[in-house]
Amino acid sequence: MTNNTPLRLDSLWRGAHVATMKNGRYSVIENAAIGVSGGRIVWIGEAASLPAYQAQKEHDLHGGWITPGLIDCHTHLVFGGNRAGEFEQRLNGVSYQDIAKQGGGIASSVKATRNASEAELIASASRRLKSLMADGVTTVEIKSGYGLSLDSELKMLRVATELGHQFPVTIKRTCLAAHAMPPEFDDKDAYIDFLCESVLPKMVTLGMADAVDAFCEGIAFSTEQVERYFKKAQSLGLPVKIHAEQLSSLGGTRMAASFQALSADHIEFIEETDVKAMAASGTVAVLLPGAFFTLKETQRPPIDLLRQYGVPMAIATDANPGTSPALSLRLMMNMACTLFALTPEEALAGATIHAAKALGMSDTHGSLDVGKVADFVCWDVESPGELSYWLGGNLVKARVHEGKLH
Amino acid sequence: MTNNTPLRLDSLWRGAHVATMKNGRYSVIENAAIGVSGGRIVWIGEAASLPAYQAQKEHDLHGGWITPGLIDCHTHLVFGGNRAGEFEQRLNGVSYQDIAKQGGGIASSVKATRNASEAELIASASRRLKSLMADGVTTVEIKSGYGLSLDSELKMLRVATELGHQFPVTIKRTCLAAHAMPPEFDDKDAYIDFLCESVLPKMVTLGMADAVDAFCEGIAFSTEQVERYFKKAQSLGLPVKIHAEQLSSLGGTRMAASFQALSADHIEFIEETDVKAMAASGTVAVLLPGAFFTLKETQRPPIDLLRQYGVPMAIATDANPGTSPALSLRLMMNMACTLFALTPEEALAGATIHAAKALGMSDTHGSLDVGKVADFVCWDVESPGELSYWLGGNLVKARVHEGKLH
Ligand SMILES: [Zn+2]
Ligand SMILES: [Zn+2]
Repeated sequence: MTNNTPLRLDSLWRGAHVATMKNGRYSVIENAAIGVSGGRIVWIGEAASLPAYQAQKEHDLHGGWITPGLIDCHTHLVFGGNRAGEFEQRLNGVSYQDIAKQGGGIASSVKATRNASEAELIASASRRLKSLMADGVTTVEIKSGYGLSLDSELKMLRVATELGHQFPVTIKRTCLAAHAMPPEFDDKDAYIDFLCESVLPKMVTLGMADAVDAFCEGIAFSTEQVERYFKKAQSLGLPVKIHAEQLSSLGGTRMAASFQALSADHIEFIEETDVKAMAASGTVAVLLPGAFFTLKETQRPPIDLLRQYGVPMAIATDANPGTSPALSLRLMMNMACTLFALTPEEALAGATIHAAKALGMSDTHGSLDVGKVADFVCWDVESPGELSYWLGGNLVKARVHEGKLH
Repeated sequence: MTNNTPLRLDSLWRGAHVATMKNGRYSVIENAAIGVSGGRIVWIGEAASLPAYQAQKEHDLHGGWITPGLIDCHTHLVFGGNRAGEFEQRLNGVSYQDIAKQGGGIASSVKATRNASEAELIASASRRLKSLMADGVTTVEIKSGYGLSLDSELKMLRVATELGHQFPVTIKRTCLAAHAMPPEFDDKDAYIDFLCESVLPKMVTLGMADAVDAFCEGIAFSTEQVERYFKKAQSLGLPVKIHAEQLSSLGGTRMAASFQALSADHIEFIEETDVKAMAASGTVAVLLPGAFFTLKETQRPPIDLLRQYGVPMAIATDANPGTSPALSLRLMMNMACTLFALTPEEALAGATIHAAKALGMSDTHGSLDVGKVADFVCWDVESPGELSYWLGGNLVKARVHEGKLH
């Protein structure tokens, strides 16, 4: 390209400042312009420095701030029913035990998810997905884990896949078959055997999962059981992530780090050795303040240690019917600031570039730079810190997914 | 009207269940119909029992739940600037003292509000108001209190009035000139004298305030000072409400009850004698969980005592730039459940009928019954408890203000 060949663009965006989130910092470009072609960013910088260009479409944003599209890197968005009834019962004084006795808790979500048709699951998850998207999300990870049988786990991931076809959003699918024990099994090891022998290979054959996750906790699976399941996943070429150290310290995070886990999630109870292991393996710490808030937890993740060792911190909704019925990632950013004392800059990095890293997609997503996918949001704010400051509210002026305004 | 005269309606709404919130309970009507004429409800009941009618417009809601329009009975929605910068500074380790030294805190909001034009204040408050409305709010109380001079307090209330003209929402205006000390005064008593002699009479002459409020706290005004200001308000025929017992117990709530205060707000530190006084005076307890959350308070309002003495509990956003940048009343309902252990039914009563009572408008607003104003919302939920269950999300299917869909 010579000086007098104009840049050919599908669209040009201008009239706003940009927080690019390169290197996890705001990395601001004031009065910026973004040129998009083929769904990718081909030019970004100060509008005053724009070279000659020909754009099919020009958008003047008339103020505000552009950030990378938000990435919700940990959700259980697909499920049958909801547990508002249990929420209400608990607040009316019914004990957890009595709710469990009447078939409540995760068992009720498993039952409802198994009984739901794909169309029903798509319809209910769509409503939740639209809420996330309306609040600026352009990528959503969705886990299975309420099926707990081969067919119903596959059904959940087909629904996740279909959501990505129906809506302008990127979906990443995670097999969380090791979420809880299905009613058909008494023995945890036998269930893990079944997952290794039947479920994981089928997931790979059908190409239904981008990663594998497990719930490592006293009430779920032991570190040894998860390790066996991760070995199988690794041998099949699937990256792993883990729900670990949420309620107690079992060593799941360290173990997951030895598999170069993409992320360790919750991690309220990790210690310095765990943090060192995460730093060494490049594992992202995924903070889930919605669950912390809803469960009225008191043990906070060790933010200072994570900072000290340079472990990237992501933030997600953990959207699920039991412990985090959260439909706004931006609200989670506020909660990460208020409950965990993250800075607004860390919170925004946590919902963009570090979330992308937790999904193994930071080469293409999560920050704004030439060559990256053109997923971005323009917000009606005067500073990027406002995204974490407001509790609720509709701040989105424009949401762009793969270069297209939605 | 004889049996064969059809009911004449501007609009008929059907296809949803209704939680009427009569007597502060869900008071459900399944498969309901609501007939509206002249902005009022003229018929409500099971659709199967509808008499003969002629409606200019029929709306089939295709499922979901109708509740009274939400009423946000305590906001500081009009202000210049915002304090996201301070929020960010504090999380980056700058102390409150250093922020105050550089002119931060409430002083910065007073300065920005005084310096802003009415048009600027309308523009910034509109954005916040639209967020509240999008989440189902049909009535908003707006306080002055960032002007602290006659002209700027009046300016704030003119802006509040104008918002009610520009948007399909009912605005109630409260004079909170006794919010903080203005820079022009050294002496709190002298400022209270000024409010009694100059500000309150002018508010009445101009008809700019529906009620009078004061901040009774060590960092603001003493119980005696507020009492003097309330005496003047009462002599002018203005009902009173109070910010009291948020950070300490000064007896403000009891004193306000002796003036038949519409509400006492915050009230984390009230005791049994205060609760008794509120019950006797019919004063509503306004709970503000957004401020509790943002300030990381630990002293919860005594919910069990309030229940025991039958004091109605309302819930509001306290939307303000410093201690509760909250733009969703439904989120406050969730926080009232999670942080204060209200039931979802109490939370919904707190954002409808009890909020109406806190504004002295429960005869016409806050529940759904024949003769009441047709302010209601249809939500995309399967039970009214979901309104408190979800953290964030867009649940509104239809919002009706004074009989009109918006
Ligand atoms: Zn989870
Ligand atoms: Zn207030």
